[in-house]
Amino acid sequence: MKRFILATHAYMSKGIKSSLDLILGKQDNVSVYCAYTEEEPFFKPLIVKEVEDHPEDEFVIMTDLFGGSVNNELLELTAKENVHLVTGTNLILAMSILLTCPASDDVADTIRGCIEEARTGIVYCNDMEIDSDLDEL
Amino acid sequence: MKRFILATHAYMSKGIKSSLDLILGKQDNVSVYCAYTEEEPFFKPLIVKEVEDHPEDEFVIMTDLFGGSVNNELLELTAKENVHLVTGTNLILAMSILLTCPASDDVADTIRGCIEEARTGIVYCNDMEIDSDLDEL
Repeated sequence: MKRFILATHAYMSKGIKSSLDLILGKQDNVSVYCAYTEEEPFFKPLIVKEVEDHPEDEFVIMTDLFGGSVNNELLELTAKENVHLVTGTNLILAMSILLTCPASDDVADTIRGCIEEARTGIVYCNDMEIDSDLDEL
Repeated sequence: MKRFILATHAYMSKGIKSSLDLILGKQDNVSVYCAYTEEEPFFKPLIVKEVEDHPEDEFVIMTDLFGGSVNNELLELTAKENVHLVTGTNLILAMSILLTCPASDDVADTIRGCIEEARTGIVYCNDMEIDSDLDEL
């Protein structure tokens, strides 16, 4: 099976999970790690354990910041064939990954598609043409 | 002055704020709105009030999802000259905006640069060359 992990500085991961639960319905296959908080000052061994406890499963780990310490700590896990690591997570990326990866036979390629979608979804709305449909909002 | 607002479905906004506080230090000029939660079922009037209470200030509103209801509800605020609306927020975008917009004379253009940075920061780490530096992690 596919398993998903959100790991970020502080509570961003928990917050994303709450948004996913609201929009997609409760997600049972998503683990959340809030690094450097009182509850989880040492998140890395917990994630390594979760991965090692399920060697037959495929993991997609989503983190917050390229070059940030949470992502840096987890980079070595990409040496494992069953672990994918994506950083720069926004809600579009997390949603797309949760919606498409579970049924994917090629998770790596699916993730690349999700990243394109997530990048396109970062938009400065003032630059958009506001059409008359907005009057109805 | 510049004011910043994070508005998302559920608690993603609060989570991002906690990550920003951890990485950048406590951010006093960032308001957080957790839409559709028990505390804030009707977030839009609260944001409109915050904007209208400070007509002399410049706002950057960051939301979660292009086409999502939180962003849709706020789109009409882009008609105001002192409001910028960005969606697809990840931690890189929020950090870049908070670090560069306060001193910017052209916030619109600064935001466009932050968006490029945020898009580039969404990375599938398995596709990166892992070099020997990682042995030290």
